[in-house]
Order: sequence, then structure tokens, then C-alpha cells
Amino acid sequence: MSYNTFGHLFRVTTWGESHGPALGATVDGCPPGVALSEDRIQHWLDRRKPGQNRYTTQRREPDAVEILSGVYEGQTTGTPIQLMIRNTDQRSKDYGNIADTFRPGHADITYFQKYGLRDPRGGGRSSARETAARVAAGGVARAALSALLPDLRITGYMVQMGPHHIDRARFDAAEIERNPFWVPDAQAAEDWATALDQLRKQGNSVGAMIEVTAAGVPAGLGAPIYAKLDTDLATAMMSINAVKGVEIGAGLAAAGLTGTENADEIDMSESGPAYRSNQAGGILGGISTGQEIVVRFAVKPTSSITTPRASILRDGTPTEVVTKGRHDPCVGIRAVPVAEAMMACVLLDHLLLHRAQTGATGPLGRIGS
Amino acid sequence: MSYNTFGHLFRVTTWGESHGPALGATVDGCPPGVALSEDRIQHWLDRRKPGQNRYTTQRREPDAVEILSGVYEGQTTGTPIQLMIRNTDQRSKDYGNIADTFRPGHADITYFQKYGLRDPRGGGRSSARETAARVAAGGVARAALSALLPDLRITGYMVQMGPHHIDRARFDAAEIERNPFWVPDAQAAEDWATALDQLRKQGNSVGAMIEVTAAGVPAGLGAPIYAKLDTDLATAMMSINAVKGVEIGAGLAAAGLTGTENADEIDMSESGPAYRSNQAGGILGGISTGQEIVVRFAVKPTSSITTPRASILRDGTPTEVVTKGRHDPCVGIRAVPVAEAMMACVLLDHLLLHRAQTGATGPLGRIGS
Amino acid sequence: MSYNTFGHLFRVTTWGESHGPALGATVDGCPPGVALSEDRIQHWLDRRKPGQNRYTTQRREPDAVEILSGVYEGQTTGTPIQLMIRNTDQRSKDYGNIADTFRPGHADITYFQKYGLRDPRGGGRSSARETAARVAAGGVARAALSALLPDLRITGYMVQMGPHHIDRARFDAAEIERNPFWVPDAQAAEDWATALDQLRKQGNSVGAMIEVTAAGVPAGLGAPIYAKLDTDLATAMMSINAVKGVEIGAGLAAAGLTGTENADEIDMSESGPAYRSNQAGGILGGISTGQEIVVRFAVKPTSSITTPRASILRDGTPTEVVTKGRHDPCVGIRAVPVAEAMMACVLLDHLLLHRAQTGATGPLGRIGS
Amino acid sequence: MSYNTFGHLFRVTTWGESHGPALGATVDGCPPGVALSEDRIQHWLDRRKPGQNRYTTQRREPDAVEILSGVYEGQTTGTPIQLMIRNTDQRSKDYGNIADTFRPGHADITYFQKYGLRDPRGGGRSSARETAARVAAGGVARAALSALLPDLRITGYMVQMGPHHIDRARFDAAEIERNPFWVPDAQAAEDWATALDQLRKQGNSVGAMIEVTAAGVPAGLGAPIYAKLDTDLATAMMSINAVKGVEIGAGLAAAGLTGTENADEIDMSESGPAYRSNQAGGILGGISTGQEIVVRFAVKPTSSITTPRASILRDGTPTEVVTKGRHDPCVGIRAVPVAEAMMACVLLDHLLLHRAQTGATGPLGRIGS
Repeated sequence: MSYNTFGHLFRVTTWGESHGPALGATVDGCPPGVALSEDRIQHWLDRRKPGQNRYTTQRREPDAVEILSGVYEGQTTGTPIQLMIRNTDQRSKDYGNIADTFRPGHADITYFQKYGLRDPRGGGRSSARETAARVAAGGVARAALSALLPDLRITGYMVQMGPHHIDRARFDAAEIERNPFWVPDAQAAEDWATALDQLRKQGNSVGAMIEVTAAGVPAGLGAPIYAKLDTDLATAMMSINAVKGVEIGAGLAAAGLTGTENADEIDMSESGPAYRSNQAGGILGGISTGQEIVVRFAVKPTSSITTPRASILRDGTPTEVVTKGRHDPCVGIRAVPVAEAMMACVLLDHLLLHRAQTGATGPLGRIGS
Repeated sequence: MSYNTFGHLFRVTTWGESHGPALGATVDGCPPGVALSEDRIQHWLDRRKPGQNRYTTQRREPDAVEILSGVYEGQTTGTPIQLMIRNTDQRSKDYGNIADTFRPGHADITYFQKYGLRDPRGGGRSSARETAARVAAGGVARAALSALLPDLRITGYMVQMGPHHIDRARFDAAEIERNPFWVPDAQAAEDWATALDQLRKQGNSVGAMIEVTAAGVPAGLGAPIYAKLDTDLATAMMSINAVKGVEIGAGLAAAGLTGTENADEIDMSESGPAYRSNQAGGILGGISTGQEIVVRFAVKPTSSITTPRASILRDGTPTEVVTKGRHDPCVGIRAVPVAEAMMACVLLDHLLLHRAQTGATGPLGRIGS
Repeated sequence: MSYNTFGHLFRVTTWGESHGPALGATVDGCPPGVALSEDRIQHWLDRRKPGQNRYTTQRREPDAVEILSGVYEGQTTGTPIQLMIRNTDQRSKDYGNIADTFRPGHADITYFQKYGLRDPRGGGRSSARETAARVAAGGVARAALSALLPDLRITGYMVQMGPHHIDRARFDAAEIERNPFWVPDAQAAEDWATALDQLRKQGNSVGAMIEVTAAGVPAGLGAPIYAKLDTDLATAMMSINAVKGVEIGAGLAAAGLTGTENADEIDMSESGPAYRSNQAGGILGGISTGQEIVVRFAVKPTSSITTPRASILRDGTPTEVVTKGRHDPCVGIRAVPVAEAMMACVLLDHLLLHRAQTGATGPLGRIGS
Repeated sequence: MSYNTFGHLFRVTTWGESHGPALGATVDGCPPGVALSEDRIQHWLDRRKPGQNRYTTQRREPDAVEILSGVYEGQTTGTPIQLMIRNTDQRSKDYGNIADTFRPGHADITYFQKYGLRDPRGGGRSSARETAARVAAGGVARAALSALLPDLRITGYMVQMGPHHIDRARFDAAEIERNPFWVPDAQAAEDWATALDQLRKQGNSVGAMIEVTAAGVPAGLGAPIYAKLDTDLATAMMSINAVKGVEIGAGLAAAGLTGTENADEIDMSESGPAYRSNQAGGILGGISTGQEIVVRFAVKPTSSITTPRASILRDGTPTEVVTKGRHDPCVGIRAVPVAEAMMACVLLDHLLLHRAQTGATGPLGRIGS
């Protein structure tokens, strides 16, 4: 609704810049009585933390979350939860030069144009560091969901890095946590490592495609027309830095399908409707079907590269930009935990919305005798 | 924000079902003093109207808009504008049978599951007829924009129908209005007609990809993080019936690019920054660059086909569904005017947001001496 | 949130002007499965209808509500409910003169200043006719509440008209429906009739104080800090035309009390906490206590009087204004059904909010062993 | 909109409990380029700070604000401003006993009932300490307003304490800052000191009435029907702890007036319309007239008193409550700076809303030739 707030009832407002004193998330609307601790949120932050391997920025920060409000004796009280992460590795330097230069492909030119000024330190508000706040907020959402939807499993992973795709025949979920790319394909993990090393040496970066799924979502979540579950998932993913496209289920490929190929036929099983396929990605008419929810999104390659690029200064003078510093050659890697966090936030939000309107946390209409 | 409302400041709430007495849009937040008449809105509705050629549903309705409030002596007063379109061609029949059957790929199963009941007449609220209300609201947005951004040009067109893509080398904007597919490629129009005739005879349907562009948008529109211009465009397009994916600029293809390929280099021109390419689709960091804004989205094939499909009844009994009636073989065709309307609504909304925060309707930060 | 929308989850957007084709309310967020018909809403509209006695405007309109969407076979479907009331008694005349004159105490000067133009017909959007839309929306809220809170009783009545107060010792709820003033005191009804006749002859008008109570509200509704139940009730009542003040429980008189006088002592009863007094008006810390909720608000006398008043024309020329036409000498009378409707909307909204966050429709914390 | 957020475009979300690590406000939507520093905000906080005289709680805390985001080189950047105030004087003690007792007149019973648990330390979220966050946010609003409305003067003061009223004939604005009661009447200040000393000795507390005015507000701010300027002011004031009633201009007394008494007659002056009186309190039809805005509200006496009061324990056992600790005998005193802060937030918010819709920061419609 607002500029920096996400969600209808479970509302997350993130704040903070890359190199200010701290950043965080103000989380409002969390149910009371949810078991929550800093450790529990830290678990998710640690998965996103930079500097864990040679493929992510070498900025080294503990990204330690502090809960400043809303939790008492290990339980949420129903009041706002303030999550703060201090910035501890802001290398002090003169940003005067950077403040006058616009990096091609970067938001610094548009922030300047919009506001007439900007915080140039490390990208300021447009830095990917903002996503740490999302992961922390997602940790709160997961804590609430663990009681409300105990069977829920959210899984994010990379399916493409530049020209390299995973082989779905080799899909192995257990592999995801074993490699630095969150890729469910051991062979791809090996190949991508070689490819990314080479790119980094060339002073270049590369894009990525992330897929995030949610199993165990009951039918009935979502709302028609403008607060559709798929609309809100698209909103959530598109709001992540550097995302240029989002798709659900068959996604953009649906443009190439016929009606017979696209419509998932339905059988009846003991546990309710069973679909023969999942082109819908678990959502029909903006409302969950009970199938696995499947979202994919593309992350563009970071514009912070050491290859010189033509640009201009604030006064219009032509220049060449080479971005030094600690940057991720494939920023998409770190988007995986962020996508999982956004999925958690959207699902909790829609669970609360559904509960508000219907009093239920699952389908109100029962199919089968 | 709410279930059926779209927009931050220029807020559109659509209402109505396919076969109820009427449907429409409640438009709040329009600037005062905008020249507005029913004719002006009707112009846009007529472009979306069904039954205009053999490729859209043969339902024949005038889709005549009535302005019930908010306009006095041809000008908006700043108060809510109620736009009503009566449903005049609701063929009366017994919907009892349909009410118990779930069409594969259709929202009727999830609406029933969510609410425990539904309006089965013609798809009820999930019908594509809802988009008429969007087109009407878009007409209001365009009227306001014509004064605020006189150079704005919004253009929607199809770029893919099933396996058939346009040839960008043959792109001719003048062609768009000349064929029933809103396709900017005369040869494609001819080929697609043949292909679609064949599909319809087979009792099948097909998906489509729509592209909508906006030229003449000043730099500076948008907001960081959650109300990004691209996020809100994705929200707008994903909320249209049957849309399964949205992309901006390079879009999903950005996953396959390197940083050098993706970042649009910048030169200085007399009118400000000039970009050598537009992978960004006119948006960086959620804020417009001043380049052409480029959005694409995929519309799945309609599930209302005459080929029999396996499904179930409300009581769980297996059945076969054949959807008779008046349906579009390629519902994506009619999404073109809808996409233009949504683009207009989003741009006006962000213009108002930007004006609220900065007092300007364009960039606050000037580049160049 | 928006300019013409009220409510968090049960959201009402009213639209329409006094002398346009129609006015109404777009109601979004209503639970599905609520029994609803035009008759049921009409019942409440008829109580507000003008022209029923000599103390309200002689404008005679049926104020017949039409449900245009959101209801199927007598039940709400969970989608937006459009309620339309046609304006049938808009006497056609030349408003040119009125459009240039500003009535002292009336909104026509500020509407003109804000928007640069206005709809002068019968007060346009600022007319008390807008409250018909609220009463209709309140009818929807009541229908939903009758299932969710069957013991709820909302009662509105006048407690003061100009210098005349009711005698609380004579309070008789049964009297409310028997007199044109909705006053729970038979003697007052008689006295006020005489007083109001005299005022009208003098070409004058008079203010009023309304009290509205809600019994049967469970403890636990409300939210801390900004969406407090009392805050939202104050918002609801202050948004009614001509209201200049709102108070809860002891209200403004609380400024004159000591802590021992003000704090309601608590005993334990079989049904839970029992309070020895109700200075709180049923709300502590923004959350309902389970006691009767008590709200009062003052309605200023209408500015449409036949006594000449000094004013100016649009061009600044001094003038004298005498407002002829059909006006209520005590517009507060008709505010009674409006206040009840707003109470219903707020209570339903907070019930849904509470259910969203806690899963309950009453207190989560139980007092007593 | 949300549970803990206030404002449409200038949005303030407060967070934090009385005895947690910190509390604060997340401020989103502030215009960019506003000169802002911690000192500037601290100035306002210091006025509210407890322990400054013997009439406010003896809790001694610096209430030092830290700006954690949204400001760069002394200017707001247009991104969220996080304001944090550490709680430094939380005396550690065992709250187990308090957690099971409900104080008459206090929110602890309803918080427990609503959420099933609560943070009992010092009142938790319902503590008046929350208002420090409002004052800090108000400091941001004032900084933005100082550029946008340089002639704006916001003034808050007490007009009643228990049975003692100020004498308007002795009104002296210069006196407000000279006494601990913010009372514009030197004689009242003296008398009230005696009265309050006596009450405190008796272990009692007392209510208060606050008036806050805003001069220099242009005509045209506000919005019809639900986001009226007076509605939003009432919302703002009612949301402050312990407030039981709000009125604008003539306020509740309007119920006792006739139309001739109430309607402010209008003359033409060189600077535009000039009103002969201000019963309207500067607002007509929800929109500012350009006159002084006048709001009053009642603060109930604090329930934390040392006189024993009948109450119950969580298990229903009857008990007697005596609240020891550091409490304000007249909590209304400290509401004065809070009311000023809320006035500033509302005015900035409406200025931004008006600018969004009309492009102007003052009246669009000009009166006079």
C-alpha cells in the first residue's frame, strides 16, 4: 500500500540503507502466542548471509538480528515486532566521486532523478542488503505458519544461471543445501562453479532464474481480482531487487499452449480433488487449489562489474564506469532465501485474510460426499 | 489493498458478475477538472467489446457505460466516479447443472472451495467480463493523463499466439488497429487467422503473449522496494484473468544475460540521459528512467473448450466436461485493451504518488548543467 | 484509507451526489453465505427516509436500494456488493445562481476552494443524502453480524436537541421508535415537537446530540494504538456530515473526573468480569471489555436556514444568503439510523480483524478458572 | 489502516513497549530534501520528557532519539526514516504478580482477553511511553512542514484539569511554556499546582482537557466523506492513550446551538474570505477554510493510583489493587506535546494528499476577482 510496506494484514515495512547504522523490518499484524526468538530468525538470515563462499560478496557481516519489540517471554504478543540488523562492515570511504557517477543498469540514476538527492553509500536504499530485512520478516511468518499450517514446506532453488539450465531429470531436493548455488542438481552445481569462476575473472556478472514452491497449502487461499494469490506472489517477487519477470505454473509458456494442454484434468482421491498435472502452478482464479504452488522469477545480472561501461556524470559529462568493491557475480544466488521469505509472508497474509472473511483456514466448500 | 481494489491514490474498485444486473468500477482519487464524458470512456470500451469478429465470443452486448457520479458539466469534480455497465445479454437458463460441475482449468472449483458457494452464471465474478470495468476505469485514467502527460502514448498488441510469434523485423504499429488480433505484423495477422479458425473447429483454444508499452513517461515515477513501478505493473497485469506471467524489459531472458549485455549504457543527449539499449524496460530500481516502458504478459488458453476433459462433480463423482456456449478461442486477444487500461491506471497512480511526495510530475533531480 | 472508503476489511466506498442519477455504496470484504436481500436492507433505509414527518426534509423519495452484485440466490458470495439508490426527486432548476454563492456554515465554499469547481446541485457530494449509502452498507453489516454475534443489539437515539436534554430517569427504550425524534423519553418527544415547530417558523435550525450503544459485543475486539475500537468509532461518527465532536463512555466529562471516580471497579461474575460502572464506555486500551459500548456525538444545526446571513459570491462580492428549499430544521434526527449503521460497520470490521489475527471471534484469554 | 500505522501518505508505524529494549517510529512517505537531524527531533522529545517537574512520572530517561535510516548528510532522502528511542530506565523486577492482576480502568485486562497473553512490564504496548514515538514522528512532520507551510503555527495547551478551567479572558500564549501544565493562564497554573499536589497526596489522579490549534493552514486541505480533515484529526487524537472524546470548533456544544448561532458569516478581505466567527474550528465539509483549526480532547485520569480499588486476578479471584510505582497524577499534561505532534502529522499527510490530487498546496479555486 505504502511505499515501503508489503502485505494486507501481515504487514512488513522494511527500512534502512546499505551503509547506515542499521536496517530492519517493522512487522505488524502477527498473530499472538507464536513462539519466536532471535535464534529462530537468525537461522534464516544465516542462509542468506554474504561471504559464505567465493560466489557471493566478500562483505563479512554477522547480520545478527535483534528483536526490539513485540515478543515477551518467547512469544509474540500481537503487537508490532521490530527487527533490527546492524550494519557493521560499512567500510568508511569518500563517496563523493560515486555520488556524481551513474552506473549503467543501476538504480542510482533514477533515485537521483526522483528525489533530487540520494544516499550513495553502497547503493543506499536500493542495495540488495534490504533483502536481509525481508528474510528476517519471513522468519516471523514461518514461525506463525509452523503452527497454522504444519504441513507447509517452502523450497527455493536456482533453475538457471545465465545460459545454464538444470536438468529436471536429475532434480534432487536434498542437493539444494549442499552447494553454494542452491541448485537441486549436483552436476549443475559443478558446472556452474566453473562457469562462474570464469565470469568473475572476466569482470562480468550473470543472471539467474529462481523457482520457489510451497507444498501443503490448503485450497481456498487467495482473493478474486486484485488481491489474488498469484498477483500477490508476483508483487512479492517483483519487489525483490533486480527481478525482471515472474511466472506461476506454466507461466509465460502458457502463451504457447492449447486449452487441452493447459487445463489440468481433475480426479477424485480420498483426500479430495487430485489433478493430473499442475500447469496452474497451484492457483486458479487467484485462489489456491491445494496443489503445490510454483513460482519462478528472473534476476538480472548485477550492474556492478569491473568491465568498463559508458555512462555520464551528474553534470552530463560522459564517463566510463568500472565498479570496484565487493560484489556478487551472480546476485541471484542470494535471492533464493529471499524468495522463500516472501513466499512465507504472502501465504501467512492470505491465510489471515481468508480466516478474516470466512472464519476458516482452509476450504469452506467441501468436495465429495 | 482490499480484495477488489487496485491502486494507491487513483483507486479502482471493480464489482459485478458476468450475468448479474450490471458490473462496473468505483473510481476514487481522480483529479478534479478533468474533461470526462461517457463517450470518451465508451471509445475504449468499444475496442474491447466482444462479438466484433469471429475470433471473440459471440455474446453481443453494447457494453454501454453510464457515469453515475463524480462528473458535473463535463468535468470531474474530485469525488468518486461510478461507472456502470449493464449486462443485457444474459441468456436465461438453468445453471443448476453447471453449478455442480467443475471445469478443468477454471476458477469455479476454487471459488466454491473458498466461499462454500458461488455464482455459476457465466463464471460469475471470475468471468472475463470483469475486465470491461477495468477498461472503463482506464478511460478515466487516460482522460486525466491527457492533461498531465500530453506526450504519453500507450500501445498494446499481441506478440505471440500459441506457437506463432510476430516477426519484429516486420513491426508496424499502424497495423495494430487493422486486424482482429491487435498484431503489429500484417503477415502474422493473416497466418494467425488461419491457425485460429482451425483450432476453433477442433474445439480447442490457445494462449497468447501481449506486450504493452508506454512512451513519454518522465523519469522519476515509481517508488522503492514495495511500490516500485515495475512491481505495480506486474500486480496490474497479473490481476487480469488468465495471466500466468509478467515481465519487464528483457524480462525472464535477463536470467540468461551477462552484466555487460544487460546494463544499458548511457550517453548524454540534449534532452537528458540517452540509453543505448532498453533491457531495463524503462525502469531501474523501481523508478522510471524516461525510456519507453515495456511490459509483456502471458494469457493462458481459456479452459472453456468443447473437447471433453476429465473432471469431478461437487459430490466427487467423476465426470467429463464439455463447455458449450459463447467462448473466445483466444481470450488473449481481448486482453490487449485491458492491458492498456491497466498501464494507464498504474501510470496515473504513480504520477499522483510522485506529485504527493515531491511536488513535481517529473524528475526532481536534473542531470546536465 | 482512501478518500471515500471506510473500514479495514469490511470496506465501504460510498459514491454519488445529491442530485445525480444515483448514489450508493460498494461493499467489499463481506463474508460469504450471509443471507441478504434488498428487503432486508430496505428495512433500514426506510427508517432514515426523509419526508416521514414534518421535522425532516419534505423531499419525497422511495430511496429504494438495488443490489447489483455480490448476492446469488439470497446469499452473499464473498465478492463486492454494489448497492445503488436512484435519485428520483431531483427537482430540475437553474443552479447557476447557487453555484456562485457560498452559504455560511456550508461546505460549498471549501469544496470550491479545494477542487476549483463543484457540483452545486443540492449540495452535491456534501449533501446528507450520502448517508443513505451508509445506511444501506450498514444493512449488509447487520446481516453478517446477525450470524456472527446473534446477541448484538445496536440502539441509537437522541439525547439532546438544542438546549433540551432528555431526562435519564425517564429513559424508556421502547419509546425510541414511537416518536419522530428517536428520543427515549416520551415527555421530551412532546416538548421537542413544540420547540422545533417554533424554530422552523423562525427560519432557524438546531443542533443535536446522538447516543448509540451496542450490547452483546464480546471482549477482545479492537486493536492497540491506531486501529483502536474507540478510534475507529470516532472516525466513523466524525465522518458523518455535520458532526463536530465524538465521545466514548464518560467522554469529555472524563477531563473533570478523578482516578477513583473514573476507573470502573471489577467483580467476578459467572459469565466473566463484571464492572461496577461503565465510565470506559465498554472500551479499555482500544479493546472492547464486553460491557455495553457507548458513543455520543454532536450534530451541528444545518446551515440551510431562511434567516438571512452575510456571505460572499465567488468573485468576492458581499451578499446575503437565504437558503430556500426543503431542509431539515434538525438534521441530527436523521443521523440516528446513520449512527447505528456506522456502529454496525465498525463492529463487523473489527470482528473480522480480530478473527484474522487470533482465529477467534471473542476473547482469546479466558478469565476465571 | 493497519493496527499500528497512522496516515495515508505520510505514514507512521509506531512500535515498542514500555520496558523492552527500545521503542520508535517507522516513518514512510516523507518528502525528500527536508533538513533533518536528531537534534531537531530531540527538541520536541525534550518537551514531552518525563521527570521534568513534580507533576509527571519520576521515571528519568533521556529519551534520546537515534535516526537509523532515511537521512543522508542532514537531508531526508525520501526513503523510510527509522526513529529509535532506547528504554534506559526499565527497573528490573518481578512482574509475575502484576501479570495476574488487572488494574481497574487499565488496558491490561483487555490486552489479556484479546491476545491470551501480554507484556506486563510497565503496561507494555499500552504504556503512555508509546507517545514518545509519536512526538519523534511529529518532529519529522514539522521539519517537512517548515518548508511547505512556513506560516504554520501549531500550539497545544491545557484548558481544563479536573474541575478547574482556564479563564479565556486571561489567555496568554506566552504563558504556555512557563509552567508545568502548558496552561495559557498564569493564575490557573498557580491554582492547579496546589490542587494537583493535594490530589497526589491523596493517592489519586485527575483528567484533563487539551486544546491544540493550527494557524496558517491554507484553505483546501482535507477530503470529503471518510478522509475528512476533521475525521483524521479526531482519529489522531482518539488514538492517543486515555483519550475519551474529541471535538472540533464549537464541538459538542454545537448540539445546543441554532443555525444562526452556529454558521460563521463570511466577509471579503484583501487576503480572501474572512469569517466573523469560528464555530467551524477551521473546517467545513471536512476541508480546511483557512481559519485557525481548533481541536480539543479529554484525557481521562490515569488508573494507576494508590487508592485501593476492587478488581480480580486472572483466575477470577477478587482482589484489591493499589498501583505503586512512578505515575503521573495528571497524564494529560504530557499529552500536550503529543497532540501537537499528531496535528503536525495530520496536516502534512493532508497537504501531500491534496498535492497528489490537485497539484497544489493550497486552494485550487480562487475567490475574488
